[in-house]
Amino acid sequence: MRQAGRSLPEYKKVRADTAMLDACLRPELVTEITLQPVRRYDVDAAVLFSDIVVPLAIAGVGVHIEPGVGPVVADPVRDRAAIDAFPRLDPGQAAPVAEAVRLLVAELGARPLIGFCGGPFTLASYLIEGGPSRNHEHTKALMHADPDGWHAFAGTLADIAATFVEEQVRAGAAAIQVFDSWAGALSDADYRRFVQPHSRRIFDRVRALGVPGIHFGVGTGELLPAMVAAGADVIGIDWRIPLDEASRRVGPTVAVQGNLDPALLFAPWPVVQAAAAAALTAGAAAPGHVFNLGHGVLPTTDPDVLARLTTWVHEQP
Amino acid sequence: MRQAGRSLPEYKKVRADTAMLDACLRPELVTEITLQPVRRYDVDAAVLFSDIVVPLAIAGVGVHIEPGVGPVVADPVRDRAAIDAFPRLDPGQAAPVAEAVRLLVAELGARPLIGFCGGPFTLASYLIEGGPSRNHEHTKALMHADPDGWHAFAGTLADIAATFVEEQVRAGAAAIQVFDSWAGALSDADYRRFVQPHSRRIFDRVRALGVPGIHFGVGTGELLPAMVAAGADVIGIDWRIPLDEASRRVGPTVAVQGNLDPALLFAPWPVVQAAAAAALTAGAAAPGHVFNLGHGVLPTTDPDVLARLTTWVHEQP
Repeated sequence: MRQAGRSLPEYKKVRADTAMLDACLRPELVTEITLQPVRRYDVDAAVLFSDIVVPLAIAGVGVHIEPGVGPVVADPVRDRAAIDAFPRLDPGQAAPVAEAVRLLVAELGARPLIGFCGGPFTLASYLIEGGPSRNHEHTKALMHADPDGWHAFAGTLADIAATFVEEQVRAGAAAIQVFDSWAGALSDADYRRFVQPHSRRIFDRVRALGVPGIHFGVGTGELLPAMVAAGADVIGIDWRIPLDEASRRVGPTVAVQGNLDPALLFAPWPVVQAAAAAALTAGAAAPGHVFNLGHGVLPTTDPDVLARLTTWVHEQP
Repeated sequence: MRQAGRSLPEYKKVRADTAMLDACLRPELVTEITLQPVRRYDVDAAVLFSDIVVPLAIAGVGVHIEPGVGPVVADPVRDRAAIDAFPRLDPGQAAPVAEAVRLLVAELGARPLIGFCGGPFTLASYLIEGGPSRNHEHTKALMHADPDGWHAFAGTLADIAATFVEEQVRAGAAAIQVFDSWAGALSDADYRRFVQPHSRRIFDRVRALGVPGIHFGVGTGELLPAMVAAGADVIGIDWRIPLDEASRRVGPTVAVQGNLDPALLFAPWPVVQAAAAAALTAGAAAPGHVFNLGHGVLPTTDPDVLARLTTWVHEQP
């Protein structure tokens, strides 16, 4: 489960004096933080501790993560000059992350490590808006006002993201997840025109290295077929649609991942258990099902509930 | 278009020294603010200047609207005692709003005035979370942990909302819109179980007074059939699905309203025009189509773009 560690006291302790992006570039610290939820919950795979803006930061973009806010960009990208001047990522710049992956793979043994990157729309939105945005108005305006500029920028971002995950795979990551978290703000037509070709380049490069790709965004019920067409092998589903319905939309060649509502972890255990059972039942209708939450773990989640959940899921036949 | 006035300089001028909820209770000021976008844009209907938390405030709930944040509740409702102690709305408490409606109807002549209220989930979320929430975790936890308590609370809120819009209709409002803005955070199953019965009571009471009801929430593509079943005559659609597809989902007895993406108003005029034309074309497939945005007008929208848009739409055959 993504961000499963961020509600843990041992995480808060090791992160206490270290800014988020600094923490993502210290291989021993990344290793420790990645392993914390694995130790607690004995989950079947580890998710690399990182952030979708890490490849931007190491490429030289002025970005930091403001606690309680999210990524904040010093100079928002609003015109063609800024797009043309946007840096690329040299694979060598990802060395601290690749080193963390190598350390982790050695520690994890047979347990797979899932690497990740951000998708083109979500990265572009942070960079164009300058931070988290409810409406993504500058991003949408740019894509429609200057489609060539948009495609140049989204192409650059896809290239950065692909380079970042390639380095993770070369260092031993067993699968890659592409989080285009806010792509659900787009219509299907706009997604297919402005985002899908760039996401496809990321998945093509991941597939060329022989590992599967997982794709996820919240509120993407309308976009699922288009996201699968971008090249995903597994598609993450939020809690808004049941997994059997999601599987009908994405077709018989794609596995589904999800989709317990993370907000339900604040309800009493019988509610959590019933919702998890419903996800397992609906997920059985898909050609493959990775049990997971329908979005990241909320920071105030009780770790004991997560422990009870993972234990219960493991006990199911 | 809802919130069409809030980007206007004349609005900022008259609101300068007045808190939002105070402004909503001054009949002459409500009248002036409601009429401002009508004067500017010559729209076919006026939308009452108010807020979904106004009926809560006048019923005695400690709530205010924090500029740039949204509704903030002094004492969040988190247990059965708070639910049982929650106030009701006496129709007489809505007198300032009813007076504003009467003044407006006299000014507007044949042009209809649309009144509104908040839907049960959105009101409950503000009250339970204590303010705007990305994940609605306390609200969802309460509905699942204590379904009886939830239904008691949602029933109270629906009663307050229904009383509020009844007073608007009795004073002359020609239609009522129920904004359950954040209901799209729920699965269809949870919406039908926890929200729909309460929304239905609001629409039943509106219909009993002989005026049509409009229903809207963002990201509700999965919920549209359930929202129609709550009793709406017109259903508002955001930009995530085309209006012809929306009409297929809601069936042949319901009109659609929408659905130009308000973020596109930041793009150059040809983009706005093309998107408006697409909405008109797709809307023609429905049994009725009210042209509108797919959500409220963003505060930094250029009023000249809105003027050009309304003029252009009026010129279409």
